[in-house]
Amino acid sequence: MATLIFPEHPSPVADAEALRKACQGWGTDEKAIISILGRRNAIQRKLIRQAYEEMYQEDLIKRLESELSGDFEKAVYRWTLDPEDRDAVLLNVAIKQVPLPDYRVIVEISCIRSHEELLAIKRAYQIRYKHSVEEDLAQHTTGDIRQLLVWLVSVYRYKGEEINVRLASSEAEILYRVISEKAFNHEETIRIITTRSKAQVLATLNHFRDDYGTSITKHLRDDSSHEYLSALRTAIRCICDHHKYYEKVVRRALNQPGTDEDSLTRVIITSAEKDLKDIKELFQKRNSMSLEHAVAKDTSGDYKAFLLTLLGKED
Amino acid sequence: MATLIFPEHPSPVADAEALRKACQGWGTDEKAIISILGRRNAIQRKLIRQAYEEMYQEDLIKRLESELSGDFEKAVYRWTLDPEDRDAVLLNVAIKQVPLPDYRVIVEISCIRSHEELLAIKRAYQIRYKHSVEEDLAQHTTGDIRQLLVWLVSVYRYKGEEINVRLASSEAEILYRVISEKAFNHEETIRIITTRSKAQVLATLNHFRDDYGTSITKHLRDDSSHEYLSALRTAIRCICDHHKYYEKVVRRALNQPGTDEDSLTRVIITSAEKDLKDIKELFQKRNSMSLEHAVAKDTSGDYKAFLLTLLGKED
Repeated sequence: MATLIFPEHPSPVADAEALRKACQGWGTDEKAIISILGRRNAIQRKLIRQAYEEMYQEDLIKRLESELSGDFEKAVYRWTLDPEDRDAVLLNVAIKQVPLPDYRVIVEISCIRSHEELLAIKRAYQIRYKHSVEEDLAQHTTGDIRQLLVWLVSVYRYKGEEINVRLASSEAEILYRVISEKAFNHEETIRIITTRSKAQVLATLNHFRDDYGTSITKHLRDDSSHEYLSALRTAIRCICDHHKYYEKVVRRALNQPGTDEDSLTRVIITSAEKDLKDIKELFQKRNSMSLEHAVAKDTSGDYKAFLLTLLGKED
Repeated sequence: MATLIFPEHPSPVADAEALRKACQGWGTDEKAIISILGRRNAIQRKLIRQAYEEMYQEDLIKRLESELSGDFEKAVYRWTLDPEDRDAVLLNVAIKQVPLPDYRVIVEISCIRSHEELLAIKRAYQIRYKHSVEEDLAQHTTGDIRQLLVWLVSVYRYKGEEINVRLASSEAEILYRVISEKAFNHEETIRIITTRSKAQVLATLNHFRDDYGTSITKHLRDDSSHEYLSALRTAIRCICDHHKYYEKVVRRALNQPGTDEDSLTRVIITSAEKDLKDIKELFQKRNSMSLEHAVAKDTSGDYKAFLLTLLGKED
C-alpha cells in the first residue's frame, strides 16, 4: 500500500499558480512546494507541469532545479518527473557512474518493476538519451556482470503464476552443482535467474532451500569483493521479496555514518505511490522504531520535511 | 510493397459461410479456400475467424487443419493466423527443432520485425505456450549461440536514425581487431551487433568495409561448420538488407534438390502483406526469371496455386 496522501480533485491551474508564487521574489517558499507537490499523485503532478508550462511558458522542473539545492532539490526533481522518466534518469545515472555502474539501481528497476513499467522506462530512456538502455549498459560493463545485467534488463519474463515443480527441482540441482564447484558465473545460473518467470524462480529457490538446507544467497559469497556476486544476490532478493530488500536498503542508508541520502530518497520516492506502507511496517518490525522517526533523526530541513510528507505525515 | 490482392470491404459472414461450405460434404473445395483466404488481409482474416467461430461454434483454423494436408495445409494454417501469432508459432517450432534450434528463423524474426511487432510476438508466445520466448530459447541453446540469440531476441534497440560517426569508426576497429584474432565469439562482437540501433550497426559495417577493404561477412567464415558464425552472418544480413536476405533464402529454397518448402512458405507468407514485391523484384534481377515462374516450376497442386495467389497472381 501507498503512503502518499493526496486530495481527489485538486486544480492543476491553482497548483501551478501557487508554485509560481513560491518560486518568485526573494527566497523560495519551500514549505509551499512541499505541501503541494508532496501531496499529489503522478497524474496530478503531470497535469500541474502541463498547466505551468502553458501558463508561464516555462518548464516547472527546470525552475525548481534552479530554485532549490542539495538533497532536497534532487528529491523534488525526481519526484516531480513521471515515474517512468524518473526511472530512466535513475538508470542513466547508475550506468554512467564511475569507475563502475551502480548495479543495485539497475537490478532493482529490472527486477521489481512490472514488464509494462519496464517497457515504458525503456521508451522514456530512448526519448531522453537517444540510446537504448541496453546499449549504454553493455558499453559500460564487461564480462559476467554485463551478461547478468543485460539479461535482467532485456528479457521479457513470463508473467503467469503457474509453476513447474519438476523443473524447479531440476534447476535447483543445476544451481547447487555449479555453486558447489564455485562456478558462480556459470551461464546456467544467469539463465535460470534471468529468464524464468518470477514465480518459477521462487519455486526453484524454495526447492534449493528444502533440498540443500540453506538459502542460495548464503552460498553466493566469495572472499574477494565480487561485484557480479553482489549483483546476483541483489537480483535474487528483489525477485523473492522486494519489500524486505527495500527495508534493508533504507536501514543501511540510515545506519551508515553520514546517511546515504541517494538510496534513502530513491526508495521513498519510487515507493510512496506504491507500497511504501509495506516497507514501513517491515522497518518497524525489524528496527523497533518507525521509519518516520528514523528519517527525522538522520535528516534535516526541507529535505526532512519533504520525505516525511511522502511518508504520509499529516500536517 | 505488398503483393497481396484483397477487396476493400468483403463480408466476414459471407466468407465464413463460403468456407464452411468448402469444408462440408465429400471432399474439400480447396479452390474456394484459396480464393477467399488467399485474398484477405490480416484484419479481414481475423474477422472471418471470429464470424466463423460465432456462427458454427468451431475454430476455423482447426477445421482447415483437419480438411487439408501437407505443405498446403501448413501454408494455409500459418497464413490464417494473426501475424504475431504466426511468428510465435514459427519461433516455437524453430526453438524446439532437434538436434539444434533453427537459428535462421529466430534471427530473422528478431532482426527484421520492428520492436512493436516483436513485442506483440512475445506476448502471443506467452499466451500460447505459457513460457517466455527467452526462457525456451535459453533452455535449448548453450554458449556463444545462446548469448547471440537471446540478446537478439530480447534487446530493445534504439529506433532513431541518428548516427554517431566516431562511434561507428571505433567500433569498426574493435570488430576488425577481434576478427583478426579469430575471436569471432568475442563479447564485443555480440554487444555491437545486438545492442546498437540498426542505423548505427549499418554505419559501423560501412566503416568496416571502407577501412579494411572487405565486408565483415567475408571475414566471418571458419573452416569448420560453425552454427554461431552462420547465425552472426544471418543477423548482419537481416539488419543490413532484409530484402536481399529473403531473396537468397527463396533462391536457395527453390534451387535445392526437392525444394525447401518450409523456407519458401515462410518467406512468402510473412512478406505477402508487407514487402514481397521488393523481394520479387530482387529475385527477377538476380535470377533473370520471375519469382512466380520459379515457384510454378518447383511446386504443384493447391500448394502452388495458394503461393501464386499470395504472390499477386490475378484470376
